[in-house]
Amino acid sequence: MLEKAGIVLTAAEKAEIEVADFGLGHLDSQGLELVTYINTDRYCAKELVLFPRQTCPEHLHPPVDGEPGKLETFRCRWGEVLLYVEGEPAANIQAVLPAGSEACYSVFHEIVLRPGEQYTIPPGTKHWFQGGAEGAIVSEFSSTSRDEFDVFTDPAIVRMPSVADGELQ
Amino acid sequence: MLEKAGIVLTAAEKAEIEVADFGLGHLDSQGLELVTYINTDRYCAKELVLFPRQTCPEHLHPPVDGEPGKLETFRCRWGEVLLYVEGEPAANIQAVLPAGSEACYSVFHEIVLRPGEQYTIPPGTKHWFQGGAEGAIVSEFSSTSRDEFDVFTDPAIVRMPSVADGELQ
Repeated sequence: MLEKAGIVLTAAEKAEIEVADFGLGHLDSQGLELVTYINTDRYCAKELVLFPRQTCPEHLHPPVDGEPGKLETFRCRWGEVLLYVEGEPAANIQAVLPAGSEACYSVFHEIVLRPGEQYTIPPGTKHWFQGGAEGAIVSEFSSTSRDEFDVFTDPAIVRMPSVADGELQ
Repeated sequence: MLEKAGIVLTAAEKAEIEVADFGLGHLDSQGLELVTYINTDRYCAKELVLFPRQTCPEHLHPPVDGEPGKLETFRCRWGEVLLYVEGEPAANIQAVLPAGSEACYSVFHEIVLRPGEQYTIPPGTKHWFQGGAEGAIVSEFSSTSRDEFDVFTDPAIVRMPSVADGELQ
């Protein structure tokens, strides 16, 4: 999908694409593929890949170490992304809620991003997003990324397996 | 060039592409074309376009308001960019110094970036860069951008025309 969108990765980057299923075991319906280009103590840039109708589950970025939560800008590069944030809910959302997890989605203000369109999500705002019929490639520009602190609505989600989880495997 | 690289802009963004000639009046040899996607008090993301052999003149990003200077990551998306920073100089640089401005270039540690390759420039480091034979498209991920504070080696350069400059024209 990245190649189709004209986005070039090095061999090392291809080998390190992060595939997140959030511990739910249903990557196709709830998951996200990520390439982190750079993550410093001042800024972060990633490329996000969403398969068709693949959903990144609802979450927010809390304050960490006295700093406001992560501020992030999503820029659609290819395909279509359906983004939901806090605010006036759409009468009928275009996204299809992941079967069995419907109760873990609570914000329905709809923003549809097509190539060249972007949206900036304020810190501490609940949000989730889904790839359209063909999926999506989204560039994420943000403040420092500390994914391990993300707060998910679904209590079954583990964003980053802890050391203890690793030891138990 | 952006279209050729598969990068989509909105009509509003196309209408607002920044064309910087740095007050030198020779855009083809010393200049830069920029699309600023987002610039917040925490991060910035831009797309930079360099024509073939077009050079962004040598400069550095100083501390501003007690914050360290701008930290920036250049990621080549298309073409080739020849980047020069402080450090061990190349025996023979691949770039061609802009005629008449040779004395305004002083750092010659060479980094060649091709699509998918990137380099992060520390705050306060002198640097300049030139598009290769076909030019280059470069994504810039950085801390907050405050171009008006950039310090150029060439005393003739005005990065941001002041109000007074505007009135004199």
